Amino acid sequence: MSESMAGLKRTRYCANVGEELIGSQVTVMGWVQKRRDLGGVVFVDLRDRTGLLQIVFDMETIGAEGFKKAEHIRSEFVIAVEGMVEKRDPETVNPNIPTGILEVRASGLRILSEAETPPFMIEENSKVKEELRLKYRYLDLRRPDLQRNMMLRHQVANLSRNFLNDQGFLDIETPMLTKSTPEGARDYLVPSRVHGGHFYALPQSPQIFKQLLMLSGYDKYYQITKCFRDEDLRADRQPEFTQIDMELSFVDVDDVIGVNEALLQKMFKDAIGVEVPLPIERLTYQDAMDRFGSDKPDLRFGMELVDVSDVVRDCGFKVFDGAIGAGGSVRGINAKGCGDFPRRQIDALGEAAVEYGAKGMAWIAINEDGTYKSAITKFLREETVEAIVAKLEGKPGDLLLFCADNNEVVYNTLGNLRLDLAEKLELLDKNTFKFVWVTDFPLLEYNKEHKRYVAKHHPFTMPMEEDLHLLETAPEMVRAKAYDIVLNGNEIGGGSIRIHQRDIQEKMFAALGFSKEEAYERFGFLLNAFKYGVPPHGGLAYGLDRIVMLMCGSDSIREVIAFPKIKDASCPMTEAPGTVEKKQLEELSIKVDILELT
Amino acid sequence: MSESMAGLKRTRYCANVGEELIGSQVTVMGWVQKRRDLGGVVFVDLRDRTGLLQIVFDMETIGAEGFKKAEHIRSEFVIAVEGMVEKRDPETVNPNIPTGILEVRASGLRILSEAETPPFMIEENSKVKEELRLKYRYLDLRRPDLQRNMMLRHQVANLSRNFLNDQGFLDIETPMLTKSTPEGARDYLVPSRVHGGHFYALPQSPQIFKQLLMLSGYDKYYQITKCFRDEDLRADRQPEFTQIDMELSFVDVDDVIGVNEALLQKMFKDAIGVEVPLPIERLTYQDAMDRFGSDKPDLRFGMELVDVSDVVRDCGFKVFDGAIGAGGSVRGINAKGCGDFPRRQIDALGEAAVEYGAKGMAWIAINEDGTYKSAITKFLREETVEAIVAKLEGKPGDLLLFCADNNEVVYNTLGNLRLDLAEKLELLDKNTFKFVWVTDFPLLEYNKEHKRYVAKHHPFTMPMEEDLHLLETAPEMVRAKAYDIVLNGNEIGGGSIRIHQRDIQEKMFAALGFSKEEAYERFGFLLNAFKYGVPPHGGLAYGLDRIVMLMCGSDSIREVIAFPKIKDASCPMTEAPGTVEKKQLEELSIKVDILELT
Repeated sequence: MSESMAGLKRTRYCANVGEELIGSQVTVMGWVQKRRDLGGVVFVDLRDRTGLLQIVFDMETIGAEGFKKAEHIRSEFVIAVEGMVEKRDPETVNPNIPTGILEVRASGLRILSEAETPPFMIEENSKVKEELRLKYRYLDLRRPDLQRNMMLRHQVANLSRNFLNDQGFLDIETPMLTKSTPEGARDYLVPSRVHGGHFYALPQSPQIFKQLLMLSGYDKYYQITKCFRDEDLRADRQPEFTQIDMELSFVDVDDVIGVNEALLQKMFKDAIGVEVPLPIERLTYQDAMDRFGSDKPDLRFGMELVDVSDVVRDCGFKVFDGAIGAGGSVRGINAKGCGDFPRRQIDALGEAAVEYGAKGMAWIAINEDGTYKSAITKFLREETVEAIVAKLEGKPGDLLLFCADNNEVVYNTLGNLRLDLAEKLELLDKNTFKFVWVTDFPLLEYNKEHKRYVAKHHPFTMPMEEDLHLLETAPEMVRAKAYDIVLNGNEIGGGSIRIHQRDIQEKMFAALGFSKEEAYERFGFLLNAFKYGVPPHGGLAYGLDRIVMLMCGSDSIREVIAFPKIKDASCPMTEAPGTVEKKQLEELSIKVDILELT
Repeated sequence: MSESMAGLKRTRYCANVGEELIGSQVTVMGWVQKRRDLGGVVFVDLRDRTGLLQIVFDMETIGAEGFKKAEHIRSEFVIAVEGMVEKRDPETVNPNIPTGILEVRASGLRILSEAETPPFMIEENSKVKEELRLKYRYLDLRRPDLQRNMMLRHQVANLSRNFLNDQGFLDIETPMLTKSTPEGARDYLVPSRVHGGHFYALPQSPQIFKQLLMLSGYDKYYQITKCFRDEDLRADRQPEFTQIDMELSFVDVDDVIGVNEALLQKMFKDAIGVEVPLPIERLTYQDAMDRFGSDKPDLRFGMELVDVSDVVRDCGFKVFDGAIGAGGSVRGINAKGCGDFPRRQIDALGEAAVEYGAKGMAWIAINEDGTYKSAITKFLREETVEAIVAKLEGKPGDLLLFCADNNEVVYNTLGNLRLDLAEKLELLDKNTFKFVWVTDFPLLEYNKEHKRYVAKHHPFTMPMEEDLHLLETAPEMVRAKAYDIVLNGNEIGGGSIRIHQRDIQEKMFAALGFSKEEAYERFGFLLNAFKYGVPPHGGLAYGLDRIVMLMCGSDSIREVIAFPKIKDASCPMTEAPGTVEKKQLEELSIKVDILELT
């Protein structure tokens, strides 16, 4: 049975039926969350995107035929109900829903669509396996928690747009079918039909186009747009993801940060009621690494890294001396109150340290009586141990963890142990939002595979003026006018001031090991464009998915994307990617060519 | 030379320097439109996105060094200027620009970027060949008219969003990497790396996803999003184009039309100050064809088609009798005041008619003295001629044109002649905006190639209830709940109410000649989804590019797209599509396979 709604008009959403309507007629429409048959009376919880509303069908009010239809109703049927809003009997009030003191006594019912029993219940905090939920995403998306996530996402996108519009930014669309990016991640390619053997690439970001827009005088650009990277997926990655992207002309770092702090403040206040105190703290890259072992530090808790290299220098303990001698360091963190961790737990931390790249983890547990439990103290002089403990502000009951290695390994190991411990100690409150700017990133990093420097951000990132003289002599020392915005240990956005001067750009390419010819081959039209008058400019791009994920307290961006893909970049619902007809490939001048393993 | 702007801060955009600032210091930045050297004084027209501002450099104010720099300035240099706002001498006032009574006397100058001489002048209404303009799109985009177009587009997009937000629509993103569409235009394909031999398709529209969102209870959805069709291009087509897409639940045709009339009214009022009187006129498809020979009629002028079949029936003139006898018709239009067209011009119309598919064009010119000039009157009785002229309301000085053929040819020929004449007679005022809804489209059309009916809109379009009984017996007679919104002869949007009842959907598939198995193969996950409770729903999608094009009075959507593609779907600026490395194709398990012509 599926009746038409001819002549009917919805007058209210379910949860918008309020007390002021008691005694009035309403027409509501939605899905049946639950139906109960209580001796001649049928109760239905009707659901729409606003919430639930109880409907009562009794034979007297709705008549015999209508009542028969009501008895036929099952979960997820779509129905339209006309009826009178009434106050519920006090004993049947449901305090858990906003309409819990009301019900609608139905005088009319149409079954607009029947439904088979869904493969899982439509309910909040579903415990159903994600795989099944994603196969039936259209049912999963009926869950109120996912609906709230989608509504929040809508709100964040639109209040960002409104803020940027008010600030004079122009929403300008850049192409999706564009050119393969040199120096980037792996591109998604799109074969051209007209130009056989040629390919478009889907954009990894609108980077080049937004810089061209600055060069064209648009002054302030933004776009909320899809970007594509064909990389292996992790929990917070998707083949296609959404950026809030912006670029501004005639600006320096502080201008970009200024407008974005105001945007973040508005975003978090208006979307989830969280105050972001301004200015947001800034850490240089070097400070972030030294203090938190990470360029995306989580500032919701302390447990900072402490460099004890000076204290242990020439202490005679081989592990420490070796690391320092090789140009590395010895650093530690103080896991406050973890001095009573059982050995098994400390060993687990040590194993984690090895996974993070360390050769091992040294530790000192401070007993409540002030004595130490440790496997390393015996290698150290007593005053060295005391100095280490003092430097880490060790108190009875604390657990001190150490890593001695090159700095990269030390940062990574302690940075991650710090996070693991914070999770174990439940220091990561999802309702606390700690922002930090990380600035002054290194301009270049050495790529061992390609045996040359590569841009850490991208090849158009502006070096800091005071480091320009190092570009030829000590490129690894040059800091960039690049900045990330980090929230609770997640990089939610990043950007830089761009090079607008041709001489600096040429030096940059030289540092990357490109000849002028190679540079033109790779970045031709952008370099050509830069001949015709370039304003100083810079920008920033946010990962919208991640921002909304953090706002929702979700652990996966799949919870804030309507139709996400899974780890193998497929969609369990549509079964994309799929096979196509031979004719389609012929038109595109391509052939499938799967390399068989022999 | 490229100086930094360290320590400088722009205080105003160029055209925002107003009279109230006379006597104040300002700092402005922008591009040099023009530089004139008038005996020891350098004048510069400085340009930013707001407009022009005159800068005066005199040695006394700026000093010797600064003046030397000023002399060095050329067109398109990017400069920053500090100076005092002054009133111009009356004889140098430029009434053509808003800042024409002012100038800034520079006390500071920095050359932020030099510029080579661009390949064409940056000026409004450029006469430069489009090919060159698109190669240097970043310079073309500096032209004030293109900048206005982009700003208008920004405004239209954002006021549409704000309107839809206010109406409770949710902005929900749908995937770009999805599945190849059966029954659609040609897809752009994206090879999958993880699933060798499998392909994503870029969406031709979010149609299926938006219907799923309705099924998921989102109630009102919208998105301004890119869509992709790999078709041969025309002036108003691009490989990627932008839709304002929406879908609503629990609605019928009038609801969708209602919300969209309000949107159109707001859009045109707020963006370009044009009042759209509501309700917008509605024409059924049949009326549109009968009166204008087109399903996208231009209502800016009359010249309607008139059916004279009844009048000429059995008139003895073979051409007329033959057409009517074969089930066709004889129809005419009255080109008012064109009775004095020279024979050459009338013959040109006849040739055009043949191009539009007619075997020929009959005509009667009415001389000022009431006599006729015509090649056909001699075949007709005098009273038949008089009746024809009367039916077309022919007056002295008019030119009557006729076509006799099957209806399809008659509509197409006269519909197009009507437009050609209107253009010649300059009846197509770009500042007049005439909207019309075309409704009640045929549900199906017969496809001769596939020897079956295909959906005119798409296979989920709802038939009109009163025609449902014809679906099995006379499918070509069934009208659909489909509607287009037409502006000045351009379809700017279209949509339909969708089928939400399984039994009707099955009948629809049967009419399309699909077995149940075939239907599931093609539309599997959507049909599965429809088992679980579907609300009545419908929607509409606008072509944003076309709307903005019409608002701008442009003839091409390339004028309202920042980085458009040309006819062969390539981008002259980026040279996309391009070749890629062999390794990239290997990773995607594909091989280029160009069929050589032998």
